[in-house]
Amino acid sequence: MATKFYSEKNLKFVLNEVHRIGELFKHERFAEYSAESTQLILDTAKGIANGMMFPVFAEMDKKPPEYTGTTIRVHPAVRPFVEKMADGGWINAVMPYDLGGQQMPLTLFNACMFIFAAANYSMSVYPGLTTGALSLIYLFATKELQDIYAPSMVAGKWQGTMALTEPEAGSSLSDVRTTAFPTDKGYYLIKGQKTFISAGEHDAAENIVHLMLARIKGAPAGVKGISLFIVPRHRPGADGKLEFNDVNCTGCYHKMGYRGSPITQLAMGESDDCRGFLLGEANRGLSYMFHMMNEARINVGLGAAAIASAAYYASLEYSRERLQGRIITEKDPAKPQIPIIEHADVRRMLLKQRAIVEGSLSLVVYAGKLVDLISVAEGEEKTRLEMVLEILTPIVKTYPSEMGIVSTSQAIQCLGGYGYSDEFPVEQYMRDARIHPIHEGTTGIQGMDLLGRKVTMKNGAAVKALLGEMNATIAAAKTREGLAPYADELEKSLALWQAVMGAAVQYALKGQIDKFLADASIFLELTGILVIAWQWLLQGIAAQDAAKESSAYGADFLQGKLLTMEYFFKYELPAVYGLEKILGASGAMTVAVKPVHFED
Amino acid sequence: MATKFYSEKNLKFVLNEVHRIGELFKHERFAEYSAESTQLILDTAKGIANGMMFPVFAEMDKKPPEYTGTTIRVHPAVRPFVEKMADGGWINAVMPYDLGGQQMPLTLFNACMFIFAAANYSMSVYPGLTTGALSLIYLFATKELQDIYAPSMVAGKWQGTMALTEPEAGSSLSDVRTTAFPTDKGYYLIKGQKTFISAGEHDAAENIVHLMLARIKGAPAGVKGISLFIVPRHRPGADGKLEFNDVNCTGCYHKMGYRGSPITQLAMGESDDCRGFLLGEANRGLSYMFHMMNEARINVGLGAAAIASAAYYASLEYSRERLQGRIITEKDPAKPQIPIIEHADVRRMLLKQRAIVEGSLSLVVYAGKLVDLISVAEGEEKTRLEMVLEILTPIVKTYPSEMGIVSTSQAIQCLGGYGYSDEFPVEQYMRDARIHPIHEGTTGIQGMDLLGRKVTMKNGAAVKALLGEMNATIAAAKTREGLAPYADELEKSLALWQAVMGAAVQYALKGQIDKFLADASIFLELTGILVIAWQWLLQGIAAQDAAKESSAYGADFLQGKLLTMEYFFKYELPAVYGLEKILGASGAMTVAVKPVHFED
Repeated sequence: MATKFYSEKNLKFVLNEVHRIGELFKHERFAEYSAESTQLILDTAKGIANGMMFPVFAEMDKKPPEYTGTTIRVHPAVRPFVEKMADGGWINAVMPYDLGGQQMPLTLFNACMFIFAAANYSMSVYPGLTTGALSLIYLFATKELQDIYAPSMVAGKWQGTMALTEPEAGSSLSDVRTTAFPTDKGYYLIKGQKTFISAGEHDAAENIVHLMLARIKGAPAGVKGISLFIVPRHRPGADGKLEFNDVNCTGCYHKMGYRGSPITQLAMGESDDCRGFLLGEANRGLSYMFHMMNEARINVGLGAAAIASAAYYASLEYSRERLQGRIITEKDPAKPQIPIIEHADVRRMLLKQRAIVEGSLSLVVYAGKLVDLISVAEGEEKTRLEMVLEILTPIVKTYPSEMGIVSTSQAIQCLGGYGYSDEFPVEQYMRDARIHPIHEGTTGIQGMDLLGRKVTMKNGAAVKALLGEMNATIAAAKTREGLAPYADELEKSLALWQAVMGAAVQYALKGQIDKFLADASIFLELTGILVIAWQWLLQGIAAQDAAKESSAYGADFLQGKLLTMEYFFKYELPAVYGLEKILGASGAMTVAVKPVHFED
Repeated sequence: MATKFYSEKNLKFVLNEVHRIGELFKHERFAEYSAESTQLILDTAKGIANGMMFPVFAEMDKKPPEYTGTTIRVHPAVRPFVEKMADGGWINAVMPYDLGGQQMPLTLFNACMFIFAAANYSMSVYPGLTTGALSLIYLFATKELQDIYAPSMVAGKWQGTMALTEPEAGSSLSDVRTTAFPTDKGYYLIKGQKTFISAGEHDAAENIVHLMLARIKGAPAGVKGISLFIVPRHRPGADGKLEFNDVNCTGCYHKMGYRGSPITQLAMGESDDCRGFLLGEANRGLSYMFHMMNEARINVGLGAAAIASAAYYASLEYSRERLQGRIITEKDPAKPQIPIIEHADVRRMLLKQRAIVEGSLSLVVYAGKLVDLISVAEGEEKTRLEMVLEILTPIVKTYPSEMGIVSTSQAIQCLGGYGYSDEFPVEQYMRDARIHPIHEGTTGIQGMDLLGRKVTMKNGAAVKALLGEMNATIAAAKTREGLAPYADELEKSLALWQAVMGAAVQYALKGQIDKFLADASIFLELTGILVIAWQWLLQGIAAQDAAKESSAYGADFLQGKLLTMEYFFKYELPAVYGLEKILGASGAMTVAVKPVHFED
């Protein structure tokens, strides 16, 4: 059975050598952090992951949440885990000191989340969801509401959720129908249904606090009429005691994977007694929610990369131990069999996984660092960093998510028939990974966000900012022996990217918005590969530097890092040539196909 | 809930227009078949699929086989289904008349198997496995053994299996250890273990007849010492009654998908009383088994294409019904939502699935036709057809299997969160599909078969034969308006293919076999796309002809067919440009990577 789900060494390498987390500590905001405290925090996360999370990873899949008719019974390991997370200050770790948080850099916090998610993704989301909800409360709720809700959430007693989706409003959030009827008592009466709400109800929390989108009665149609509310399952009464707030859990989905976490259906106001408390201004709810969206989407990419990491190590361990076959030139069948890692094709499958996992992790950490840098930057530099984060977010969300499926599937393939059975946990990783291209905005939605919004925003300022970052890396790599050819490859690919982007924008300039966006998913796929190639070039530079400076990482690790970079450039990057052909020649043909053409 | 799992119209189109099954009926062997009887047989298959198979598809997944300690309890619907298949003559339908079969063309039989597998893949394998075992018995067993085993197998009372894999001999069949000890009583005593044996034990059959590979005591090591035996779970005693043959079922795997069919572990000879009956000559077992391998591998491709077909229709139905969002230029949120099939990106996902499903089906049907043509051909023509079948077999096995995962995953994506939950059956399709790149030889094994054996066999005769077929299609398409550009594209891609093949062979000529085969999986992937592009060109020609001749298929279907061909050439074929780059530039780098480079 697999025992390793992530690489401590690689995580340190990415944090310290590739993305130089130490640079953050120079800023006053993060001045209390250091290399030593970073290490301590990572070690603490590792301890929790090893002690409380990984041991119940498979069991939580086999014993998924059960709907009792009123609540959802979750695995008994969830409650002590959430308590532990609360005790350790994890739920509000990234909040500022003045709100009781630890002002932890997101770069470091996300590194810890990566450890948790690799150990047991389903379990990791419980406190994570509360953190997200808490952020919105601190940003937009009155002090009075903050005082009511935040302390119990920070203490892990109350579960936070993001309640956006409805049966008729999934990707189309503008169609939210849940209604908030104004009263003169300082609250609204909420009526409606929500679905696919993660941790929307369960028995490991004393209360559930929904950050819910709803439409105030009479508000404009569409996104301009959506408001954000706190809607608790139980509301604190005048005496401080909790009273039921008419939020009923009406069911829970049975899912392909990610089964340790309940995804619920909710009905509000069946007895006309569901109170909601407006956050900020009316009708601005969607923009408030989108404050959290970049970070929520980074989290999805992080979760996908983490699951793929765990699958990779399971398949690596198996490949080292499983004896099968002989080297290809060995003709003597009496010779002993060899570990399958000795077969080049198995190594290719391992390199593929490692390239996806470590490339994705590097990008996820970088995205966290951007958030941190934005929090301390000012003026043009702040804008520039925001632009880089905006354009990268759909990629941080999508590349690990889509490639996480491929990567976990390769892990299964390394184990053959054993991989397909549940004696080893790898098949669970593939099932767990499959959610990521769906939640927090599907891949199709991310494609439209990238091409339709981010590429065109501020006259291409985001494209320019990203190219600036990438070209700086290319320039640095060009001067280095062993890296220059890869820098050239990336530069060539970037030229292709700019050409296809330019061609797509022509549609937009002609007002053909349907054709402009028809191949947005393909454009996103192409962009994702380029961005990860860039992250690999950054890792190559860092590996060369680390090899010069010291041997803390060991020559084998650094050599393996450079070989995985080489693998990415030789085996993964070339896909851009196919994708570029598609974008160049498709003529956006899918626009012209009609539903009737699918008749048969 | 989905109601359609395959297209009758498309199946007829592929059989009649693309691969002209009628040509077979001119041969004496198939003279009793006609267009009318073909239609009747397809209708019968449809009736069984709709009546007995599809209704229990999801239920067989939710209630998988259970190991009782001695046998395996399977779903109660299995036994009546197998009886029905036996009564209808399906188990020996492809056997010659003189063996009691119906001499059915494999082309037609496989079309029916496609219907069965699309309805319920797990269920379809029970009689299919018996058919395979029966073929070996007819080919290699004595008349006496045939008389003992065949009638009960044909009657569906006895289950046939292929018992190859052992705990230490999966991909490396040469390491089979199960031992056959000679006796002077006309049988061998078998001792050993088998694993991953499909339907290796279950309570819907009165007996299990294993076609088992074992090594006669003292036989040479490796493939040259493997023999083929009949090893029944119960052997007919002198009085005709069945007595236990010391074949114990020791367990059954819990699998990711394909859960309706038990995959078993077996122990033979625990009481030294397991009798095996040699088939044909000693030490020739592996070559006998490989007589069935082409057809077994075609069956895997067929099963994968069928599962992808069912997922496609489930997602198509959902996409027509699910309302979400508005056309991209509609800014009025008060307008009603539209079916998601109106979104270009959803149509792209549907076209992708259809292109994979119908391209794969066309190839599978063609492979069946090759088998049929070989059975009636002579001399050079027979050899030529055999060469085409040999080189295509790894592709028929692999393209649908690998792309079946992608296709079923796209089906899930069309349904979003609903696709990830089990309210709709699509997530099951992805789990069911995942087995196919593993069983009957992994993708890695198929790649080595293609590049290491098939490409080089008889001085490239198989390559030449395949190119002959493909070039004939290209030549025909070049003269047609609307198809010529696609013919040109395929021709260009074929030139790339020949170039990378030539470069790979250079390694072989230099004796660098490890480098020659290092990227065999990539070469297989590239070849698979080309072959399917060719099948799409064939379908394009057939669609144009059908449009001219009559409107039996309807203009929408034929137009949809041509659009799907266009989709394949514009969105799927371009991947060859990336794959060609990999093969050209990789330098077979995976050969040089060492296990130590994965240390961290």
